[in-house]
Amino acid sequence: MPRGLRVFSRENYANPPLDSVPAFCDAWWGDGAAAATVHDEDGNVNNSVTRIGVLVSGGGSNMQAIMDRIDAGEIRGRIVLVVSDQPEAFALERARRAGIATAVYPYHAYPSRGVFTVAILDALRAAGVELVVLAGFMRMLTGDLEAAYAGRMMNIHPALLPSFGGPGMYGHHVHEAVLAYGAKVSGCTVHFVTEEVDGGPIIVQRTAPVREDDTPATLAARVLEQEHLAYPEAVRLYCDGRLRIEGRRVRILDEAPV
Amino acid sequence: MPRGLRVFSRENYANPPLDSVPAFCDAWWGDGAAAATVHDEDGNVNNSVTRIGVLVSGGGSNMQAIMDRIDAGEIRGRIVLVVSDQPEAFALERARRAGIATAVYPYHAYPSRGVFTVAILDALRAAGVELVVLAGFMRMLTGDLEAAYAGRMMNIHPALLPSFGGPGMYGHHVHEAVLAYGAKVSGCTVHFVTEEVDGGPIIVQRTAPVREDDTPATLAARVLEQEHLAYPEAVRLYCDGRLRIEGRRVRILDEAPV
Repeated sequence: MPRGLRVFSRENYANPPLDSVPAFCDAWWGDGAAAATVHDEDGNVNNSVTRIGVLVSGGGSNMQAIMDRIDAGEIRGRIVLVVSDQPEAFALERARRAGIATAVYPYHAYPSRGVFTVAILDALRAAGVELVVLAGFMRMLTGDLEAAYAGRMMNIHPALLPSFGGPGMYGHHVHEAVLAYGAKVSGCTVHFVTEEVDGGPIIVQRTAPVREDDTPATLAARVLEQEHLAYPEAVRLYCDGRLRIEGRRVRILDEAPV
Repeated sequence: MPRGLRVFSRENYANPPLDSVPAFCDAWWGDGAAAATVHDEDGNVNNSVTRIGVLVSGGGSNMQAIMDRIDAGEIRGRIVLVVSDQPEAFALERARRAGIATAVYPYHAYPSRGVFTVAILDALRAAGVELVVLAGFMRMLTGDLEAAYAGRMMNIHPALLPSFGGPGMYGHHVHEAVLAYGAKVSGCTVHFVTEEVDGGPIIVQRTAPVREDDTPATLAARVLEQEHLAYPEAVRLYCDGRLRIEGRRVRILDEAPV
């Protein structure tokens, strides 16, 4: 049995929906690993790029922004696996078109959040993922993932943390809160993921003005433009080895340490 | 007895330090009222400018920024009284040089915060102050002042509220907290004053980046540059009649209402 499907074995999964779940799995670690092999100008294999796994529930525009910067040669990384809990997520289509391995884990097919998390963690490990990028992944995961990828998992939040963050603050709720509070500036925050929701060390923040006539939707759109700049920048810095976590601060090094 | 000194009467002040306090009072309502009279190009008296009172404990660089914009003819207002709790505040010297009335209320000369507040409130009213500007005033005042000047009193906070605000968050404490949290963006917030510390409706926010090598002092200096733009802007909008408080939002009108 492929290691990527270990979650379905009897040891850790009481009622495997063997008929349904594998149908969602387009591909797994094997394709991703192959796709991540890069040849340098002399034709030698160069594996110094960071292997990135993306978790996404929706359209994946932030993932696309990262893909575009990778394609432009600006990020020393490669997306080797895209995981979604939503079979119809357009992000999966983006990945397929780009030849990137995808896997779908329907949340309700799992008996618990813990099993769901371990399934995803296994897939990430099997694909050799070094950096996990949460790009609008709408399911809470357990601490297993944060522990396994401590300092190697990023999220983006559509506000300037610590403002307008924490439990319940996601998607349109964030922008509604910003407008209700009457803030004149919002923005986005890319941060490392810890067990505290939206509380991890901050890597990049970018700002966006709040306009007089903003609705949650118009503000979200303006913030999203900044997300598409902030997230690739954070991934670029990570892949260049320029991020150093010091307590809850992230120091951005001028040059990668030797 | 001049109404501006009513606080020293026996009704509301048990132990008036009559020998000491008046010595600090350089001037009061009378001079301020006179200074606020403006003549238009035809020599007619034009009192349509807003009469501003400034409360300040320190150097008063934000007050100076407002004075500069007034002198440049960009703000339809005039500072008619500068109140300080610190006899040596350089802001008083700035005011004197500009021919603006000043008054000093040494906090410890008053038996309670309530009496201290009423003394200042009386001075503001006597000078016909319509807009109160807190420009680094380091004493807490009681609700009497907020009630009397509800929607007509502004403060500036050296961070992007609601982040890094609330009790204990003033001066260098704010910038220390920003750096300790690892935020990558800070800034300043001009807001109307309510009884909730740093919780009033926001008028203007401006941002400043946090640099890798920042100390609280270097960050404070960068934020202060933005304060010197934000505060005059908020006062300008107020004096143009363009601010409308709606719940906890401040709407900035395109044109002043007729």
